[in-house]
Amino acid sequence: MDIRAYLDEQRRLVEDRLAALMLEPTGAFAQHVEAMRYSLFAGGKRIRPVLCLAGAEAVGSGEEARRLALPVACALECIHTYSLIHDDLPAMDNDDLRRGKPTNHTVFGEAAAILAGDGLLTFAFDLLSSTASAAIPDPIRIRIIQTIARAAGPLGMVGGQSLDMIHEGQQIDYEELRRMHRSKTGALITASVVCGAMVAGAGKEQEAALQTYGDHIGLAFQIVDDLLDVEATTAELGKPAGSDAKADKVTYPSLFGRQASRSMALEAVQEAIAALTLFDHRADPLRALARYIVDRKT
Amino acid sequence: MDIRAYLDEQRRLVEDRLAALMLEPTGAFAQHVEAMRYSLFAGGKRIRPVLCLAGAEAVGSGEEARRLALPVACALECIHTYSLIHDDLPAMDNDDLRRGKPTNHTVFGEAAAILAGDGLLTFAFDLLSSTASAAIPDPIRIRIIQTIARAAGPLGMVGGQSLDMIHEGQQIDYEELRRMHRSKTGALITASVVCGAMVAGAGKEQEAALQTYGDHIGLAFQIVDDLLDVEATTAELGKPAGSDAKADKVTYPSLFGRQASRSMALEAVQEAIAALTLFDHRADPLRALARYIVDRKT
Repeated sequence: MDIRAYLDEQRRLVEDRLAALMLEPTGAFAQHVEAMRYSLFAGGKRIRPVLCLAGAEAVGSGEEARRLALPVACALECIHTYSLIHDDLPAMDNDDLRRGKPTNHTVFGEAAAILAGDGLLTFAFDLLSSTASAAIPDPIRIRIIQTIARAAGPLGMVGGQSLDMIHEGQQIDYEELRRMHRSKTGALITASVVCGAMVAGAGKEQEAALQTYGDHIGLAFQIVDDLLDVEATTAELGKPAGSDAKADKVTYPSLFGRQASRSMALEAVQEAIAALTLFDHRADPLRALARYIVDRKT
Repeated sequence: MDIRAYLDEQRRLVEDRLAALMLEPTGAFAQHVEAMRYSLFAGGKRIRPVLCLAGAEAVGSGEEARRLALPVACALECIHTYSLIHDDLPAMDNDDLRRGKPTNHTVFGEAAAILAGDGLLTFAFDLLSSTASAAIPDPIRIRIIQTIARAAGPLGMVGGQSLDMIHEGQQIDYEELRRMHRSKTGALITASVVCGAMVAGAGKEQEAALQTYGDHIGLAFQIVDDLLDVEATTAELGKPAGSDAKADKVTYPSLFGRQASRSMALEAVQEAIAALTLFDHRADPLRALARYIVDRKT
């Protein structure tokens, strides 16, 4: 399959639905909503929402499955965007550039950026419980909310970011690095695929397989992120290249070297694809996405 | 009824359940969880969770209604605590003292405090979708999640805090002040009462009446907060007294004077109680809480 064309098509679905669901920057709260929209519509790769749609497609029937999963995909992108805004804050990574644009706090100020993140996180749970997602049966909606809250919460993404802050400038070992990434980026990536599949009525066995798939692509994604930070330019990345070395962070290339890191990423992708044996051709987008994750240049 | 004894009893219920539901500060994420627990167990007034329990009691049958509403009450306190941590940050109100203790960021640092707030907000939605709240029927849980997400979100509490930041040092009129408070503090107070009632199976008419009740006690609560900031000491408040004047904030006493402000608060309480006519004696705790809100000294 043509993964570029597939990605473009799915991204357009996500962008259109995000635009329809997001609050308008009018009325009393216009400034706050404007700050949220600035980062949400800054043109990200939309990998998590696309994984969510592909997870739904792997279990359900194409268009119908994607239609049901779209509000969940949008909620995941709101959560991912909030995490970027907070990670970029002066008190955290203190980054000026993100998605090729000045970071939220450099445009709107620190207080407004903290609140824009808070607003996006809360709005994600609004989407998951509002009429936007009412076509999903309530018991499944509850499980999706639970899965996302846990993946994004203190033992997931937020906890992982906390470990990242604590570890800065420390020499940590592979086990610690893997734990940090598994929570910081892996948990929400896995939740994206699994929640998409839940929407389409996945069974326990399918969910477990997609959990394994998600865990492996999460690892591959992170290794490639570390490699790109060394190998790509700031213009290509849309965020400062070389920032890991500057922040004295332990990364896959710093622990294992670039060549071994790339081999690890390729191996993780193979294991991700191997986890999909019980799925038919409807999981081809998930297979192609796994390969794309190591081939990507930004 | 003896409101002090009632408050003590309900608070104990909330404290006990919070202690049982909250994550333990052990394992890989111990530091992050410790920062969340520090503010959550700093001994707040627990007004929102108590209002939630009283809302349940007004509609359902005493103990059973409270038992069902307790996890919702705990989620509301997590959200309230997160908002305090973020409001106190250097980029926001830059406060050193809260609930009689050093603020979260002065103890754990700014990055950890931002993440502690993020963690508590996300954990609240975990509680509302986990086994902790599984005794509440799913359609009602979804409505509760929706009500809380909306009250805490961009057009509610977060939006209100954003207005507060924007208005700092500005001369705003009464309409603008009322809008700011209605979103910043009123929305979550109202949601607390209404969600408690939802748990106990409230009908539309009851919900609407409690919405009116919540709106009026939210106003009374805010006016008294403003008055206490002028009249009480830092030791009594557990947070810096006189902080509004210092931050050049427009308040009820600064707009109307202290005497007229107190009259407005009393009037709001009377309107809140008047909104409860369709409820029987089971709403007595709500009536007593309304009176307590203007009588309180901290």
